[in-house]
Amino acid sequence: MTTPVQFYFDFSSPYAYLAAMKIDELAAKYGREVDWHPVLLGIIFKTTETKPLVALPLKGPYSRLDLARSARFHNIPFALPTVFPSATQHAARAMLWIQNQHGSAVAKQFARKVLQAYFVDDVAIGAIESVVAIAQQCQLDGPQVEAGLQQTEIKDLLKAEVDHAISLGVFGAPYIMIDGEPFWGFDRFDQIEATLKNGKI
Amino acid sequence: MTTPVQFYFDFSSPYAYLAAMKIDELAAKYGREVDWHPVLLGIIFKTTETKPLVALPLKGPYSRLDLARSARFHNIPFALPTVFPSATQHAARAMLWIQNQHGSAVAKQFARKVLQAYFVDDVAIGAIESVVAIAQQCQLDGPQVEAGLQQTEIKDLLKAEVDHAISLGVFGAPYIMIDGEPFWGFDRFDQIEATLKNGKI
Repeated sequence: MTTPVQFYFDFSSPYAYLAAMKIDELAAKYGREVDWHPVLLGIIFKTTETKPLVALPLKGPYSRLDLARSARFHNIPFALPTVFPSATQHAARAMLWIQNQHGSAVAKQFARKVLQAYFVDDVAIGAIESVVAIAQQCQLDGPQVEAGLQQTEIKDLLKAEVDHAISLGVFGAPYIMIDGEPFWGFDRFDQIEATLKNGKI
Repeated sequence: MTTPVQFYFDFSSPYAYLAAMKIDELAAKYGREVDWHPVLLGIIFKTTETKPLVALPLKGPYSRLDLARSARFHNIPFALPTVFPSATQHAARAMLWIQNQHGSAVAKQFARKVLQAYFVDDVAIGAIESVVAIAQQCQLDGPQVEAGLQQTEIKDLLKAEVDHAISLGVFGAPYIMIDGEPFWGFDRFDQIEATLKNGKI
């Protein structure tokens, strides 16, 4: 009996998007489920004194190049969105509400569609109406999702999730934990696979 | 006829150390030489508004774990030095002087020994006497190296090298350029190999 892989991401993190497209397949290869946790990097970055990568001198231009190249290297469709980074609290709250109401399989399907809408189709996922439209593509009821993501309990739940992530040491995205062992970055998938296969490296 | 791979590193960068142990072998596999460029990350970080990884909240503890794990994963001996990070201007200047006087093969041999002294044997490479002792292990004349690394021309040369690196976009280490294509990080060796093999990804 294995514990699920814990996957922390922000809907606005491009490296988390790349990881999101691969993590379930990789985990399944070794008999593991994946629990997805949406977090808000904006809040986490205050704790870690970090800025978004693309906002930094020199690193910003490189990261744009590296993102596109990494996506090509791994055969994942990708285009840096026009509005980047984006606010993601509506998407994150919608995911938590969907998870509570419809279970994690539907919530993950919704999350994948949001990420693809943002990083492939340049949809402005910061807007509630975009989030609701994507939920409708998952056969969910638009008005229900719209009301749900604005519930105080859901807002509090997201806040609690982000605080919990910070308490676990989550400082960026993608952040992946396997039996308590942390991995930061899509570029740790080789070590993640070795850990899934053989246990702690 | 291929151009050499350009390898930018700081003697105090652990990920650059890991890269330094592998880069020449990887390049040679595809018929390439490697030009090593010592830089000073302390100066570069002022430009890029970056702090050393281990100094950051949350990221610091993770990076210690990740470094040790990455070294084990790649079968490279590694121990985080007691004094970390270290000043590296003496080592960098000594390398440039040795390169000017004795050629790049000896300079690279010296550089590898400095990195191994720091990241395997916990030698305090910030001190001139440590740098000179390592030069002597390379059959170089200690007093000559000691005088050489303190020459004004050598100090100016290092300053010019760092400025040039920044002008090329070098914002961290290891930073590797292949025919003008930049790669940051030991964790890009998979993409570096693909580029050496097939050209631009």
